[in-house]
Amino acid sequence: MTRPVSDAAEARLAAARDAMATAGVDFLVIGPSSDMIYLLGRKLPVTERFNALLVPASGRPIVVVPRLQVPLVEGLPLDAERKIWDETEDPIQIVSAIAEQASARRIAVNEHLHASFLLALQNRLTAASFTDAGPLIQPLRLCKDAGEVALLDDLGQRFDTVWEAFWASGPLVGATENEIAQRITALLLDHGFEAVAWCDVGGGPNGASPLHHGSARPIEPGDPVVIDFAAVRDGYYMDTCRTPVAGEPAPEFVTIYDVVSRAHDAAMAAIRPGVAAAAIDSAARDVIAAAGHGDRFIHRTGHGLGIDAHENPYIVAGNETALAPGMVFSVEPGIYVPDLWGVRIESIVLVTETGGRSFTEASRALVQMS
Amino acid sequence: MTRPVSDAAEARLAAARDAMATAGVDFLVIGPSSDMIYLLGRKLPVTERFNALLVPASGRPIVVVPRLQVPLVEGLPLDAERKIWDETEDPIQIVSAIAEQASARRIAVNEHLHASFLLALQNRLTAASFTDAGPLIQPLRLCKDAGEVALLDDLGQRFDTVWEAFWASGPLVGATENEIAQRITALLLDHGFEAVAWCDVGGGPNGASPLHHGSARPIEPGDPVVIDFAAVRDGYYMDTCRTPVAGEPAPEFVTIYDVVSRAHDAAMAAIRPGVAAAAIDSAARDVIAAAGHGDRFIHRTGHGLGIDAHENPYIVAGNETALAPGMVFSVEPGIYVPDLWGVRIESIVLVTETGGRSFTEASRALVQMS
Repeated sequence: MTRPVSDAAEARLAAARDAMATAGVDFLVIGPSSDMIYLLGRKLPVTERFNALLVPASGRPIVVVPRLQVPLVEGLPLDAERKIWDETEDPIQIVSAIAEQASARRIAVNEHLHASFLLALQNRLTAASFTDAGPLIQPLRLCKDAGEVALLDDLGQRFDTVWEAFWASGPLVGATENEIAQRITALLLDHGFEAVAWCDVGGGPNGASPLHHGSARPIEPGDPVVIDFAAVRDGYYMDTCRTPVAGEPAPEFVTIYDVVSRAHDAAMAAIRPGVAAAAIDSAARDVIAAAGHGDRFIHRTGHGLGIDAHENPYIVAGNETALAPGMVFSVEPGIYVPDLWGVRIESIVLVTETGGRSFTEASRALVQMS
Repeated sequence: MTRPVSDAAEARLAAARDAMATAGVDFLVIGPSSDMIYLLGRKLPVTERFNALLVPASGRPIVVVPRLQVPLVEGLPLDAERKIWDETEDPIQIVSAIAEQASARRIAVNEHLHASFLLALQNRLTAASFTDAGPLIQPLRLCKDAGEVALLDDLGQRFDTVWEAFWASGPLVGATENEIAQRITALLLDHGFEAVAWCDVGGGPNGASPLHHGSARPIEPGDPVVIDFAAVRDGYYMDTCRTPVAGEPAPEFVTIYDVVSRAHDAAMAAIRPGVAAAAIDSAARDVIAAAGHGDRFIHRTGHGLGIDAHENPYIVAGNETALAPGMVFSVEPGIYVPDLWGVRIESIVLVTETGGRSFTEASRALVQMS
């Protein structure tokens, strides 16, 4: 709790201020969110009690915090003033006074700030205009630095070990989806993850919905089983999906699995600096459409990942963001055949100077388990 | 998934429209939140993909949903039109077009809607003004109906059984805080709860922070142990706190425990329809202040509970809301002595015509465990 002020935190603050200046923004309000974690180096809870990091155009940033949460802002890596409010005070009034003192004209608020707080600020600061801080802060988080890449490499290796342990963890047939999820959850916690963000298991027809989380349905012989999990360690996420089959796969499934596998590899091969995110999506989508399953690939190809499990860049049609070294995102094409089965294969990929590199090496070939 | 349209859902919609008319609001935008669960009868996920319930002043409500989430809005209890958006479409444009067609002038958005969505709507619908839907919807949720009270009664009885099982679950001394939390979590899941919202355990000096969640510190003889947990079943929360002691308590602790116990009972005794929420807070606070510990009771006396673990009414200085039959909230005074220990005792209470009734009967006397 007495970690000293860090150079990395000060560098991120300076980058945020550069972005503010470019955008004509003179005041930032960052509520509890991954943007706050990025800038403040600390996670504060999202509750009905307002807390925020305020960044004026110059001078020390200010952390506004309810008295109850003061222990959470001890020893911050960022040199920030603390403004503590008591339960009978109005934190919006406190923030407004600080913004007025800073002569704030153009205020950016983080994208997940609750609308009730934004409306209350707008009602008080009628001379100021408000905008979304997302376009300022998200580009800063888009390219991971060496420390972040090293962390993700470690997470990826742990995921590989978890898959290996899972392949050896006994039969799928007869186990329920929920039991399989518990098996994987235990492996993730055993391998050093602090929390499991999700572990979705869809066997046979349940795999045909990318939204299916799990059930008490036991796996039957021949079922493909879509297994998608994500977990967090040291504040960063890793995410993966494989679709093993219980026993002998149907020939039609092998055909579809092969299409998804080729779509995955086509997307991977298309990755290089300068290419648009949308082009990675279409590289995968074209393979699936050419095989006649275009209308069965009902989601985007991928999403960025880091402090959030889902963040920029989104690998989706229309996203013209040019890929750059340090960007991290998922490549996870799928085909979903209603009432029958689904298949999805996912890698988390780093954009390098020369292409894309997966953080995980777990085999993407069709795995048969008993 | 094919549950028919329910009269209860239609009645809630009608009440919301009455509140809209009174407030001069002609259009509601309710993103994923407990307000959506209340009005729509369905939980949709909070993600970067926009979904919302739209309520124009007249005509059918509209559910705006990404194609991926369509299965989540099958068989709604509310008769609502569905507007599905594809990954390449802009949902804000869709919502704006619907609001314009409804000639919306005064739009209320739910309090937890992300600021980015609100700012985008404000940018498009420049002729409309925006306000917080919280003051419209929360009063509707404030007084629980008979069905909700029956559900909470059941949850309270289950909590009593969990406490009984915990008292008999073996010694505290030597167990870590995390192990105690795991013991209680297992009991909650065994007793029919779907999820544990939190299970905070603070032994000895760790109990002196109401924010402490748990640790690997083993309980020592004489430690008081603050144990606060909440769990959810059928979409509703129950919440409780007790502070047993491991072995023989210090005489000073017995004295402080008695103060908190009397504060709890004073607050309970003050509850009746017509009394302000703030008066319940001061009833507890006065007892603690009179005993010389006023500055060691560093949080409000309580919070409402229902679909949310924390909701209106808040039992805090300044809240002049008059209590009414059907309101449900916690009474949870505490004293926190830095570096030494803490004590908190919590009941969840229903306001009746004649006073306050606790949903839980677990003994509030000081429990000694080995």
